[in-house]
Amino acid sequence: MNGVKALVFDVFGTVVDWRAGVAREAAEFLQRHGAGGVDPAAFADLWRARYQPAMEEVRSGRRPFVRLDVLHRENLEVILPDVGVDPSHVPASELDALNRAWHRLDPWPDVLAGLARLKTHYIIAPLSNGNVLLMLNMAKRAGLPWDAILGAEVAQAYKPAPEAYLRTADILGLEPGEVCMVAAHNSDLDAASACGLRTAFVARPLEYGSGSSRDPVAERDWDVIVADFAELATRMGA
Amino acid sequence: MNGVKALVFDVFGTVVDWRAGVAREAAEFLQRHGAGGVDPAAFADLWRARYQPAMEEVRSGRRPFVRLDVLHRENLEVILPDVGVDPSHVPASELDALNRAWHRLDPWPDVLAGLARLKTHYIIAPLSNGNVLLMLNMAKRAGLPWDAILGAEVAQAYKPAPEAYLRTADILGLEPGEVCMVAAHNSDLDAASACGLRTAFVARPLEYGSGSSRDPVAERDWDVIVADFAELATRMGA
Repeated sequence: MNGVKALVFDVFGTVVDWRAGVAREAAEFLQRHGAGGVDPAAFADLWRARYQPAMEEVRSGRRPFVRLDVLHRENLEVILPDVGVDPSHVPASELDALNRAWHRLDPWPDVLAGLARLKTHYIIAPLSNGNVLLMLNMAKRAGLPWDAILGAEVAQAYKPAPEAYLRTADILGLEPGEVCMVAAHNSDLDAASACGLRTAFVARPLEYGSGSSRDPVAERDWDVIVADFAELATRMGA
Repeated sequence: MNGVKALVFDVFGTVVDWRAGVAREAAEFLQRHGAGGVDPAAFADLWRARYQPAMEEVRSGRRPFVRLDVLHRENLEVILPDVGVDPSHVPASELDALNRAWHRLDPWPDVLAGLARLKTHYIIAPLSNGNVLLMLNMAKRAGLPWDAILGAEVAQAYKPAPEAYLRTADILGLEPGEVCMVAAHNSDLDAASACGLRTAFVARPLEYGSGSSRDPVAERDWDVIVADFAELATRMGA
């Protein structure tokens, strides 16, 4: 990993536990709207399942770039009927508040200490599909010590589109090979690698709960493969 | 200032002492290239004098958006002959290094403590014409605790174009009136105010050295008028 000057991070799943956070925020909402029998974690999964298709509308060019807060909000109205809630009967302010659940996610336990070490040696920034405000609010609440908020909104492109990675490296004034993408998802690292970025895989076996993981292991010989951010910091000499 | 949720800051002159910083970095360069008789502060002024005309090329639409690092680098090659240095005789790596002087500027003495107080109550971010990398490197070196790096490069517009202010508020998910522009320059606050932002004037009488100031006093009845960031934090209830 010689020559790496910046580490950029996938966030949902890699840095924060989106499923537990969204479930926590959704539980009370569901109760209040007569859907108390719905498993809040299943509701989080349902919401998340709309994530890639919504971004694909933008990636395909069928729709101009819109930030993730907007897509999340639209997706929320799409899925609420699936759990028996009619969104037209819920005040917009309540839907907005639930939509901000994505701004209030907790990092995995190893994250803060690992990032603090990495920050002393590298530029650290999110390269997430989350928008700037989402990442900012999350960081401020959780204490994530990012040097800057980069990602889809700044690049005006959603991962895994190459522009998301290449524009981020360009903004940092770096060659792609001087930037390392850190992610718990093999597909993200595939795309970053194809753009010339270095790659670090962090296992997050609990992303989808204890029963299953969609990325249980590194599927390729990534530059670094670690169990958590503490090991990542050690491997990066930080 | 009820309802203000974010403070966005002009940086060159308001947060950092660009003149002393650039002079400090230029002194050795000038010495090395046979221009030891040139006053480094006058050299900084000469460089800075090209700042607005270069951005005006972008604001006018005559040139697509390019980041400030690029404009600074071009301006450097323009002014070096004025101090008797032929830039074609200087290695590009040395010119690049001097150009990064703008990344290594020191904050005014009251800044760090004031920002630390403000950060606990508000979103704080630069709204500078400096690009993301410049602001990031400056913040990392000086310990500026920004919540995000916003400004011209993210908005793809140079102040005082309205888009610079309005897109920044939009990225923050805020109405213009929920954002306060903090600057030592009346013209910046004029433009922000015209976009509906709130305004805070901070006097920086030493921006151009001890002899003169281009903005010695607030020229309008800005929402807040203060002597430094400590007073700003107090006035903002932070």
